[in-house]
Amino acid sequence: MKKIAIILSGCGVYDGSEIHEAVLTMLAITQQGGEYRCFAPNINQHHVVNHLTGNIEEGETRNVLVESARIARGDIEDINELVVTDFDALVLPGGFGAAKNLCDFAIKGESCMMQSDVLRVFQAFAQANKPAGYICIAPAMIALVYGQGSQGTIGTDRDIAAQLTSMGLKHISCPVDEIVMDEKNKVISTPAYMLAGNIGEAAQGINKLIEKLLAMA
Amino acid sequence: MKKIAIILSGCGVYDGSEIHEAVLTMLAITQQGGEYRCFAPNINQHHVVNHLTGNIEEGETRNVLVESARIARGDIEDINELVVTDFDALVLPGGFGAAKNLCDFAIKGESCMMQSDVLRVFQAFAQANKPAGYICIAPAMIALVYGQGSQGTIGTDRDIAAQLTSMGLKHISCPVDEIVMDEKNKVISTPAYMLAGNIGEAAQGINKLIEKLLAMA
Repeated sequence: MKKIAIILSGCGVYDGSEIHEAVLTMLAITQQGGEYRCFAPNINQHHVVNHLTGNIEEGETRNVLVESARIARGDIEDINELVVTDFDALVLPGGFGAAKNLCDFAIKGESCMMQSDVLRVFQAFAQANKPAGYICIAPAMIALVYGQGSQGTIGTDRDIAAQLTSMGLKHISCPVDEIVMDEKNKVISTPAYMLAGNIGEAAQGINKLIEKLLAMA
Repeated sequence: MKKIAIILSGCGVYDGSEIHEAVLTMLAITQQGGEYRCFAPNINQHHVVNHLTGNIEEGETRNVLVESARIARGDIEDINELVVTDFDALVLPGGFGAAKNLCDFAIKGESCMMQSDVLRVFQAFAQANKPAGYICIAPAMIALVYGQGSQGTIGTDRDIAAQLTSMGLKHISCPVDEIVMDEKNKVISTPAYMLAGNIGEAAQGINKLIEKLLAMA
């Protein structure tokens, strides 16, 4: 059975992992005969957003690992405990947490950097030539991990695509029900809620990404 | 298109809605051609549980509606805004939030009561003879809404079944991939994570429940 490491970034689209994408990823892996373990960095979130009002909760602090545990039903570990040889592939759901907690693309744009624990693990998967799936806005990290000329998609948003291009990514436009492959680096990406109008549309691209990821793993 | 009201109870299995069950419910409705709107009571959670350690976070307060908004991607309303005539059916995902925030079954057992806003809405659906789906531990509320002799399942747990029986429910044992019907009251229930060993198993029963709910709506 293929083992996939899912990296979470909190719990909620505006300050953590996009919950639907994370759950659809778990469902697709399980239904397609793989198994997964969840990991997250043990750091504070960039901030806490009230998802009812959209406002930042000034003065409130939440931990990425602790909040990610909600999506994982408590079954999660610190990303520093991740042993790369235990896994066949890596997958990253989106949500602003990917661009605020795992890296700071949502704040710094093309001059963004990756959180150090996360970068070390992602690079280890890359160096081991193990496939990785990047969903939604998570492809903002592809060029930071795989360098100039790596390929990926965040859908069709021209402004974000231009930022990623200036970071060294070869951005390829992609509809919500499709995936983009970087064959050389074994990186797969899909737009999910960068484009999805509903959860069923997000599931179409995520199911394809997981199918390809398990086939390559 | 059939319109389903989803009632959430927070965001996380130990103090709110079970996230997988909530997302699987949304996915099933969408994939089967229905549409949904999310609602939750605007009250404080019974408590906040750290999902990494399982410990109660003493002194921390979170609001059920605000946290539920995380699962709903911000697209949610106060349950007091729910107009019953706008919907064809009701569905309740499980998680301890259903038994700590929507009612207090997890604390009081068979002497539990329902939160007043929630009870009023659930009774309005019952009086309008509109079907309702109760998932996981949510069937603890069936007898409180539909009275003596109503039928439902929480799976195969004998102790919990005995408590629900003493509340007036006719409890019927049920495997994870099946549903129990109360034809008279138009109530459908399924065990989901009361029995599920993984997310794929939970999806099987939830998909059947939504199929039946949409057929009856």
